Amino acid sequence: MNPPIVQPIKSIDELASFCKRAGFVFPSFEIYGGMAGFFDYGPRGVELKNNFKAAWWKSVVQDREDVVGIDAVTVNHPKVWEASGHVASFTDPLVDCKNCKSRFRADTLAKDVLNVDVAGMPLDEVTTLLRNKNVRCAKCKGELTEARKYNLMFKTHVGPIESDENVAYLRPETAQLIYLNFKLVQDSARLKLPFGIAQIGRAYRNEIAPRDFLFRVREFEQMEMQYFIKPGENKKFFEQWKEERLRWYLNLGIKKENLRFRPHKQSELAHYAKAAADIEYKFPWGWGEIEGIHDRGDWDLTQHSKHSGKDLSYFNEETKNRFVPNIIEVSAGVDRTFLAFMCDAYTTEAERIVLKLHPKLAPIKAAVFPLLKKEEKITKLAREVYKMLKEKFPTHYEDSGNIGKSYRRMDELGTPACITVDFDSIKGKDVTVRERDSMKQKRVKIKDLIVYLSKLLA
Amino acid sequence: MNPPIVQPIKSIDELASFCKRAGFVFPSFEIYGGMAGFFDYGPRGVELKNNFKAAWWKSVVQDREDVVGIDAVTVNHPKVWEASGHVASFTDPLVDCKNCKSRFRADTLAKDVLNVDVAGMPLDEVTTLLRNKNVRCAKCKGELTEARKYNLMFKTHVGPIESDENVAYLRPETAQLIYLNFKLVQDSARLKLPFGIAQIGRAYRNEIAPRDFLFRVREFEQMEMQYFIKPGENKKFFEQWKEERLRWYLNLGIKKENLRFRPHKQSELAHYAKAAADIEYKFPWGWGEIEGIHDRGDWDLTQHSKHSGKDLSYFNEETKNRFVPNIIEVSAGVDRTFLAFMCDAYTTEAERIVLKLHPKLAPIKAAVFPLLKKEEKITKLAREVYKMLKEKFPTHYEDSGNIGKSYRRMDELGTPACITVDFDSIKGKDVTVRERDSMKQKRVKIKDLIVYLSKLLA
Repeated sequence: MNPPIVQPIKSIDELASFCKRAGFVFPSFEIYGGMAGFFDYGPRGVELKNNFKAAWWKSVVQDREDVVGIDAVTVNHPKVWEASGHVASFTDPLVDCKNCKSRFRADTLAKDVLNVDVAGMPLDEVTTLLRNKNVRCAKCKGELTEARKYNLMFKTHVGPIESDENVAYLRPETAQLIYLNFKLVQDSARLKLPFGIAQIGRAYRNEIAPRDFLFRVREFEQMEMQYFIKPGENKKFFEQWKEERLRWYLNLGIKKENLRFRPHKQSELAHYAKAAADIEYKFPWGWGEIEGIHDRGDWDLTQHSKHSGKDLSYFNEETKNRFVPNIIEVSAGVDRTFLAFMCDAYTTEAERIVLKLHPKLAPIKAAVFPLLKKEEKITKLAREVYKMLKEKFPTHYEDSGNIGKSYRRMDELGTPACITVDFDSIKGKDVTVRERDSMKQKRVKIKDLIVYLSKLLA
Repeated sequence: MNPPIVQPIKSIDELASFCKRAGFVFPSFEIYGGMAGFFDYGPRGVELKNNFKAAWWKSVVQDREDVVGIDAVTVNHPKVWEASGHVASFTDPLVDCKNCKSRFRADTLAKDVLNVDVAGMPLDEVTTLLRNKNVRCAKCKGELTEARKYNLMFKTHVGPIESDENVAYLRPETAQLIYLNFKLVQDSARLKLPFGIAQIGRAYRNEIAPRDFLFRVREFEQMEMQYFIKPGENKKFFEQWKEERLRWYLNLGIKKENLRFRPHKQSELAHYAKAAADIEYKFPWGWGEIEGIHDRGDWDLTQHSKHSGKDLSYFNEETKNRFVPNIIEVSAGVDRTFLAFMCDAYTTEAERIVLKLHPKLAPIKAAVFPLLKKEEKITKLAREVYKMLKEKFPTHYEDSGNIGKSYRRMDELGTPACITVDFDSIKGKDVTVRERDSMKQKRVKIKDLIVYLSKLLA
């Protein structure tokens, strides 16, 4: 038999449509017409997401001695984002069409129409550039306004009065909440440098143009860890964490050729960064960032110290000197990581779609089918096998009476093992185990099943 | 030896102060002066919270055949909350002081000053009541305005324009997001009634007067499950889920005498509810709700069907009839549950504070100490024991050189087992295991340690 013709994913739309049908991800508020940039995770998606978030937490927090976690709030005091620079600078340049009132990102227009990167360019120069090159409305060819800044933070008010004094922001990133808690965490957990503080949680960006399914959304999750170090150790830990984080994706099965580092050029570094590299995944539309590793120097603690008037320095007991720790940040997008795992796993073969997820990530680990749903002896034994497995692994039971269809459904969910109970099972106390990727079938004794599957799922 | 004099928790302030010192919970934005009703979970708190959230998910979703999970967004389309009635009715009655501009909840004033419950009373009657009884400003005795409605939802805008058309709300509860996804979940996961959809996630209420530490906060988490049933089965499943959910708290060690059901009277039922009961915990200030079990009838799906124009009915393949499912809801507050676990576990004894948490909930399961930190043979063996245990359980290593102090610190974190490695350990290949609650010590062979601890931690 020739190996099946295998096709990787062709477009992100194909994946989005699959995700909806198979219960991984739904467009939010679909019954009310939807809202761009918002997605809900369905029954399969939430399990996959929980699985890799738990793997991240184990790898970055629980398996280590030097990292602890926190979980901070998402509605934030405005001073936090004044200190961080977000109130002033977390903006996109916007232009409006004077005719049809459509709104565009000026930097996207410059890139798409003129192939010019305007990152860091003053607003009036962006306006001049677009006007000199006669860039007009993409919809009606109308004239465009001058470019102006638009802040990407969602704003709300805390308390009953909607006044400027009561403004609060939905956090646009999780990092700042770690810096705020630096002292409280260090003191209560009695930590010595170097140590890290990790957090998994939501963040919000009021994007003008959400796009590419889960890649650029308005509400998302981050998993990140801020590693506090002595000044001077930056390069060492920056490199260590780069390798550590790349390894995590590889260990969970992402193909090596689909991952790369993209170091930031000096010119594109953010104001706080001394060095930065992205981990990029090769999405159907091209390479895209799924995680950033940044050497943030002492920028963050210094800023919060200035704005709060609170001392955020560290006293080294051994050398008896006091200094502001430097920070190496590893910050991954949960939804982008989800997308990378899905793109990497999604495979079209001649007669099936199969999600070749690492078994640790699979929403369902095993499925049990009775060969015939009306044969009581078979269904009884199948239920016994199911109950035995379910105590150990997330296991699914299905008595559709059509094993072929059941296989296909489980392939689409990435279920690593399908177990069929048939007439011979009653006498022989054995079952057929069919492996997802190879589709090979093997007869296994029921009493050996848990050990067999434990190996398969490791 | 007499048993130690044991004291339960005396006040919620005592617990809040302990939680900060021991790294469980910090006031958010403390360096910027804080913001009422917002708290961050610290290193110990986040592990405890993750542990019981995972236990809930396992119990309510993964161990069952009839429940699946979702994870939906928190910034919500306004139509959702118009349909649910929250835009019109999710309000508190407010009064202002005409003199000093202080703001009060009219219902709280009526309760505290007049001992009258004004729930459900029209606003003008509340105003008349307060005026007739001459209720005045609690701060300056000034005259109060008439009572008016104040909506508790946090409001924001999606997209670059802050107009009424772009309003969105931070969800004040997670439930509605499950109803919205009812069809998508049912179709993609091929579910038949009765089945449940569960979700753990954040919700937001712009409370006028946050109070009692984590009990009434502005940003919180819920863990809830909506169980969809055929009309007529309401009473059966309402009672089943009440028992099921009470058992969950008992199984995780909450004392029976500190839990009770409080059935809602017909007069206090919410507009959507046919029957309701709270699970209450006996907090230091009295009984308080930690979970609600509600029979919501077909209210929710009917409302969303009306407002969206989409059919949210269910077709029964067997009986060939179509109907709107009824819903039994179990909705627990994560932060209140956290508070209940902490209050129940927090114990003051003669010479220590000890958190008598169920081992499954404990942030750290075991701690390893070398008796002497400068004795290399001991520390080497202690590190080996530590590494062996850490692969199995979240384990802590500490070489403070003062075992007594290390015991006390671990007692405060609820660590069930402390393991000391001493001179005899080198020859005898055994260690001292000291159990948290009884403080009893036992010599255990290193090779038997994992089995011994597995039993202790079960």
